[in-house]
Amino acid sequence: MKKIVIVGGVAGGATAAARLRRLSEQYEIVMFERGEYISFANCGLPYYIGEVITDRKKLLVQTVEGMSKRFRLDIRNFSEVTAIHRDRKTVSVKNVQTGEEYEETYDILLLSPGAKPIVPPIPGIEEAKALFTLRNVPDTDKIKAYVDEQKPKHAIVIGGGFIGIEMAENLVERGVNVTLIERSNQVMAPIDYEMAAIVHAHMQEHGVQLILEDGVQAFEHNGRRIILTSGRVLEADMIILAIGVQPESQLAKEAGLELGIRGTIKVNEHLQTSDPNIYAIGDAIEVKNYIHGFETFVPLAWPANRQGRLVADHIHGLDVKYNGTLGTAIAKVFDLTVAATGNNEKTLKQLGIPYEVVHTHPMSHASYYPNAQQMTLKLIFDKETGNIYGAQAVGKDGVDKRIDVIATAIKGGLTVRELPDLELAYAPPFSSAKDPVNMAGYVASNIIDGMAETVQWHEIDDIVANGGFLIDVRTPGEVAHRAIRGAVNIPLDELRERLSELPKDKTIYVTCQVGLRGYLATRILQENGFAAKNLDGGYKLYASVFGAK
Amino acid sequence: MKKIVIVGGVAGGATAAARLRRLSEQYEIVMFERGEYISFANCGLPYYIGEVITDRKKLLVQTVEGMSKRFRLDIRNFSEVTAIHRDRKTVSVKNVQTGEEYEETYDILLLSPGAKPIVPPIPGIEEAKALFTLRNVPDTDKIKAYVDEQKPKHAIVIGGGFIGIEMAENLVERGVNVTLIERSNQVMAPIDYEMAAIVHAHMQEHGVQLILEDGVQAFEHNGRRIILTSGRVLEADMIILAIGVQPESQLAKEAGLELGIRGTIKVNEHLQTSDPNIYAIGDAIEVKNYIHGFETFVPLAWPANRQGRLVADHIHGLDVKYNGTLGTAIAKVFDLTVAATGNNEKTLKQLGIPYEVVHTHPMSHASYYPNAQQMTLKLIFDKETGNIYGAQAVGKDGVDKRIDVIATAIKGGLTVRELPDLELAYAPPFSSAKDPVNMAGYVASNIIDGMAETVQWHEIDDIVANGGFLIDVRTPGEVAHRAIRGAVNIPLDELRERLSELPKDKTIYVTCQVGLRGYLATRILQENGFAAKNLDGGYKLYASVFGAK
Repeated sequence: MKKIVIVGGVAGGATAAARLRRLSEQYEIVMFERGEYISFANCGLPYYIGEVITDRKKLLVQTVEGMSKRFRLDIRNFSEVTAIHRDRKTVSVKNVQTGEEYEETYDILLLSPGAKPIVPPIPGIEEAKALFTLRNVPDTDKIKAYVDEQKPKHAIVIGGGFIGIEMAENLVERGVNVTLIERSNQVMAPIDYEMAAIVHAHMQEHGVQLILEDGVQAFEHNGRRIILTSGRVLEADMIILAIGVQPESQLAKEAGLELGIRGTIKVNEHLQTSDPNIYAIGDAIEVKNYIHGFETFVPLAWPANRQGRLVADHIHGLDVKYNGTLGTAIAKVFDLTVAATGNNEKTLKQLGIPYEVVHTHPMSHASYYPNAQQMTLKLIFDKETGNIYGAQAVGKDGVDKRIDVIATAIKGGLTVRELPDLELAYAPPFSSAKDPVNMAGYVASNIIDGMAETVQWHEIDDIVANGGFLIDVRTPGEVAHRAIRGAVNIPLDELRERLSELPKDKTIYVTCQVGLRGYLATRILQENGFAAKNLDGGYKLYASVFGAK
Repeated sequence: MKKIVIVGGVAGGATAAARLRRLSEQYEIVMFERGEYISFANCGLPYYIGEVITDRKKLLVQTVEGMSKRFRLDIRNFSEVTAIHRDRKTVSVKNVQTGEEYEETYDILLLSPGAKPIVPPIPGIEEAKALFTLRNVPDTDKIKAYVDEQKPKHAIVIGGGFIGIEMAENLVERGVNVTLIERSNQVMAPIDYEMAAIVHAHMQEHGVQLILEDGVQAFEHNGRRIILTSGRVLEADMIILAIGVQPESQLAKEAGLELGIRGTIKVNEHLQTSDPNIYAIGDAIEVKNYIHGFETFVPLAWPANRQGRLVADHIHGLDVKYNGTLGTAIAKVFDLTVAATGNNEKTLKQLGIPYEVVHTHPMSHASYYPNAQQMTLKLIFDKETGNIYGAQAVGKDGVDKRIDVIATAIKGGLTVRELPDLELAYAPPFSSAKDPVNMAGYVASNIIDGMAETVQWHEIDDIVANGGFLIDVRTPGEVAHRAIRGAVNIPLDELRERLSELPKDKTIYVTCQVGLRGYLATRILQENGFAAKNLDGGYKLYASVFGAK
């Protein structure tokens, strides 16, 4: 009778425990959790603070009592594992309520300790009174009580990742004025800058003051005053510190287990640490990127749950492995949905991997059916093989669906050439006969086939400044409204008759609203002997970065 | 300079014309359309009648003038092609407005004639005054004018396919009492009976009177009275005849082109008819089923559009082929979404192909986040290989997404074992850490692995009637509400202590609400030496077919 000891009763740990019991009634399973609660709704915490989720009990997905009973588990909460004794296969455990300490033996040890908010040693941080981080239910209770009782007028959120953004939104929902400070030039690292630009504008429309490319230098007046790196000074009634998380790998480190990047616990494809009797899963481990295989740190719920299942199977003797993390991620940001899967441009650039990009602006469903909403969809791929490297989407309805379809296509080994062949469900309330994913596949295929050449939003200003010839093929009415400086207006439907106005000796750059008419124009131009390149994503993408010019 | 003549300017025909022009400025492209309008919003027509779409102009996606100009096409509407002269490579054309007739030459002929509503020779049908079919804009105008002006109180819709159901819904939206008559035992052929049962109940809740397993014997009193096959007599102010469509293959047939099943035009994988200079696409052609390769007739928008693109590419000399039709389909039915992809049970039974089925009832997103809605998801697969044969879903939010993901998985060649590995976008407003597709994959994998054995909703009554031992592992409160007759209540959390109450010599059948607790119970039973089978889909699925007992 194997005895399995699990450290950490949230997400992956709880998943593994339940699966182990389903696999066998024979195992002795002990699960230690330092806090009071196991298996709570991590991802729901900001929404309870925002009173979107109103019933606190809903956060407690499984109770110690309920889960113990159902799965015949020995769950010990308030129990911190303080040391691993690999030589004698025991762990030291401390009851954080009573102070009692003891050793517990294991045959197999599973570490699922998670990750904790990074709290840097910024001057004054110790004295900051209303400075919060958000990881668990007690953190949530503290923040919510503060908002309920102190009724703060102004909050500073430090960090523009998922938690920072969700907290900003939920504090706004509570009537708090929110300023969000982010060190880099964009929020939400999984997406690229031009996609984040849409999110920036949307957050500002909803009253969030965004301060990018700035950090915190010091806290003063018990955290009431914040001095930014730029010298700027802000006042606040409360501060949410959400600059990121770090793996809880101290226990593993002290036990001499091999560590990976950024302090993660290193595991093999079976989720075993350098000690084969000790497994590790969840936010604390190093994973391989699914597409390019590099080591990475992806503290998200899906991988934790998947690993929890697989680790149980492997402990049980099944031949399974974890294939790496794609990094599919999604967030609601007020009325927007922002989602991504696979690698972004920033990552590919760092890795030195060549790639091609297309941006489209499809409608969520048939435009003639009510409430169709435009999204921006970005597809990143290998121009040689057509392999899909990643996708990003920002919009309202239907963003999650398209990212999920592309994530599935990646796992199915489909190339961008095969995306048009995806037979997706069409009726007017749900999609178009050519779904946005089909269309993105067509656009990408055209590039691979040499049917279309494009330039990107960040290239066109330089091109025009250096004497490049740019035509805008929208109607005069559209162009009068706003356009890229220096563009010559030749409406698409007049282009064939006005070819004589174009220089034969240089590349014609073309722009339109979303990129479609520009593509049609470049086809006409190429077929008439011109070199032509289309501004990918059209004026709409350009303007979402640079604003109207 | 190749001259391409296209017969039919809607959907596939228009798509092909536009793609051909993008491929080359050189082609001479003539497109004939018998009606006034090209490229209209077929799938939107019922919603214009229902005044969900209020602006008639929105139905006209492309105009003859606009499309002619943009793509430099010779579009001739009101022009019926009446004959193909393959020997001299011409078609006979008749202007249906002026009566003028002429011949037009072609190098390549593309047939995109579509399909027309079946109008059977039912006694009295000729005299029926307010009997309508729905195919095009003029049909739509007629129906809408009738509803607007005559204000019918009671409509009969004959046929429970997509058009029949959408018309039923849209007439209800207009305040008309609707009776829907369907010859088979269910509406919506792409889904199976137990899934359709959910749709039946929902339609009835919305006031549609459903008459199943009955047909029309005769119309009397100018169509005011309808005599059903059963002898039942109905009165109606208007009748929508929507029993199905048939391919418009008369022209092809008269030209001696080979026909396929159900009067379709036979084509090869390049969409060429038996005459390689004549291609055919869209609702008029025979296609191969993507999964099992059998010949079939799938008059839907997605295949027509896809074929329109591919046929242009092939005419242009590109090496492309159409890989068959999966049959992904979706409909909004009042507040429900009903969707399917791949093969259903009915088809697999007919083909004699063995398969396995699982039903789950997942929430559209994390249940602790507001407005999560339960759906019913059915996955059909090969127990030996894990190959996915099809999926069906009925619910509200998120049904389209899950069917699209599974359709993508099928095209990616993924098995049910790989569905848990799909890294889908999770945040509480969008999904759960284990997405419904992941969960369905887990449930199916458990069956393949022998971790779970199930019985189906249609088997359990017979099992109990023949002395089978059925336990219901829900709580006494749930069971008191409603349960399967003959079930013994042993709540899951008491099962381990009450094993002595169970017979050791026969299979223990288990039911719960949705199938999950039943699965846990069967695991406990199996691990304790019992033979146990779980009622797939639980009481919820059973009750959706049989009602509360």
